[in-house]
Amino acid sequence: MRVAVLGTGLIGGSIGLAARRAGAEVIGYDPDHDAVLRALQLGAIDVRAPDIATAVGGAQVVFAAAPVGALAETVRQALALAGPDCVLSDVGSTKLALQDARRDPRFVGGHPLAGAETAGAAHARADLFASCTWYLTPGPSVDQRLYERLAELIERFGARPVAIAPDAHDRLMACVSQLPHVLANVLVTQAATAFARERCQPRGGAGPSLRDATRVAGANTAVWGDIYLANRHALIAAIDEAVGRLTEVRAALQAGDAQAISTWNEQARADRETLLGPAS
Amino acid sequence: MRVAVLGTGLIGGSIGLAARRAGAEVIGYDPDHDAVLRALQLGAIDVRAPDIATAVGGAQVVFAAAPVGALAETVRQALALAGPDCVLSDVGSTKLALQDARRDPRFVGGHPLAGAETAGAAHARADLFASCTWYLTPGPSVDQRLYERLAELIERFGARPVAIAPDAHDRLMACVSQLPHVLANVLVTQAATAFARERCQPRGGAGPSLRDATRVAGANTAVWGDIYLANRHALIAAIDEAVGRLTEVRAALQAGDAQAISTWNEQARADRETLLGPAS
Repeated sequence: MRVAVLGTGLIGGSIGLAARRAGAEVIGYDPDHDAVLRALQLGAIDVRAPDIATAVGGAQVVFAAAPVGALAETVRQALALAGPDCVLSDVGSTKLALQDARRDPRFVGGHPLAGAETAGAAHARADLFASCTWYLTPGPSVDQRLYERLAELIERFGARPVAIAPDAHDRLMACVSQLPHVLANVLVTQAATAFARERCQPRGGAGPSLRDATRVAGANTAVWGDIYLANRHALIAAIDEAVGRLTEVRAALQAGDAQAISTWNEQARADRETLLGPAS
Repeated sequence: MRVAVLGTGLIGGSIGLAARRAGAEVIGYDPDHDAVLRALQLGAIDVRAPDIATAVGGAQVVFAAAPVGALAETVRQALALAGPDCVLSDVGSTKLALQDARRDPRFVGGHPLAGAETAGAAHARADLFASCTWYLTPGPSVDQRLYERLAELIERFGARPVAIAPDAHDRLMACVSQLPHVLANVLVTQAATAFARERCQPRGGAGPSLRDATRVAGANTAVWGDIYLANRHALIAAIDEAVGRLTEVRAALQAGDAQAISTWNEQARADRETLLGPAS
């Protein structure tokens, strides 16, 4: 099987490593000449393509792994260049953005839930997708045989393919990925402001809860700036919901309602267990 | 030196272990008969006192480590029973609550920034306070000699004593400790609701950012219910500030203002480095 990777950064490079380990021949293309050379040196690809046409021609599976801002155009070009027996996917964090491509029976939107905090092929790993959920958003006219080819390859990467509607995906990601990043940013800046206001040394003056809660604060601006804006409608709804929930807690605190605070906290404990298993 | 520990749970038990390691004799009291027996078995105290008077009598340092709800009364009793050459402190997460005790020259409010997520002497460790900040809130009429005795003992626990005004302490903790817990609760319940709404399996469907951001969600209700309410005025102000910051991000998203989002994210990155050092 021949797999083309368009964009050889962290995710593209890791797809290359995982696909090669699964026995595929991997051809890589990146408009950044140095990036594709590094991917070749790291063994993330077998062959370096001089242009996108060479990469896509003859491939049975194509992954568009360009930055969010360049993804739609990369997918459009790849669909125009690919043959009929080729499944094309992407790895973007928002799925409504590629609605047009979804009309093509060869296209299946995708999103692996793997760390977007670091960047570059240097951090690529063959096992980046081990045990991770890989959302797929096939359209109504998708070629079922091509969909299966993609899903099986993803399973061989160690990931779990999960089919979902694009709008449901984007609403979900707004809550479970983008909102945590927004809250981490808000929290870290508010805490730094508080230390400055109280004229108190920040280092060591914050507990471990702040460290964990803000691990992703200020994540790679080039990556996350695009993600926030690409999914801004769902993210705004998620922020509004969070503000509504904060307003409810505030009211319980204002009323000194110990029972309401206790119920709210126990609900959070139960919800965390549902989402992530028992607390460690 | 004789150290009394009133309340032999996680923090009281760890103070006992640390004080014994520092060469002090530790006498423990807890209204829960089983708790104090466990502390004795674990070596967290040398002697078990039958009542608070026996524990406090003859001690040079007294730590009140009762739950927040019982702290004021424990401190009041201990001050009435202690001799003139005795420094008394507490370990409560809010410091304005013990304003009355602060008029006594023997009392110095305290708050070690050590994990309050687990509870019970079974989790007590002699090194729980290693490298942690231990806030102290001496009043204007404090006996300087007694303050030094307490601060030196805390240093021998491996902690860093930091003097701060009680109101500044409570505002700071609202931002860097209680607000992270509130946001973790809000986030985990919102995420669980989102999965249910999209009829999607939650397990594995959330990225690592959600796991880290919600580590403290639903923390021990008995401990945290009291903490939220004891510091509710500062916490309400912190929630209002967070809502204001969320409203600003929302406006930038609504306007599609890439420059504002980028500046906001870079600020968060700089603030995280100021607070916690370079990202790992």
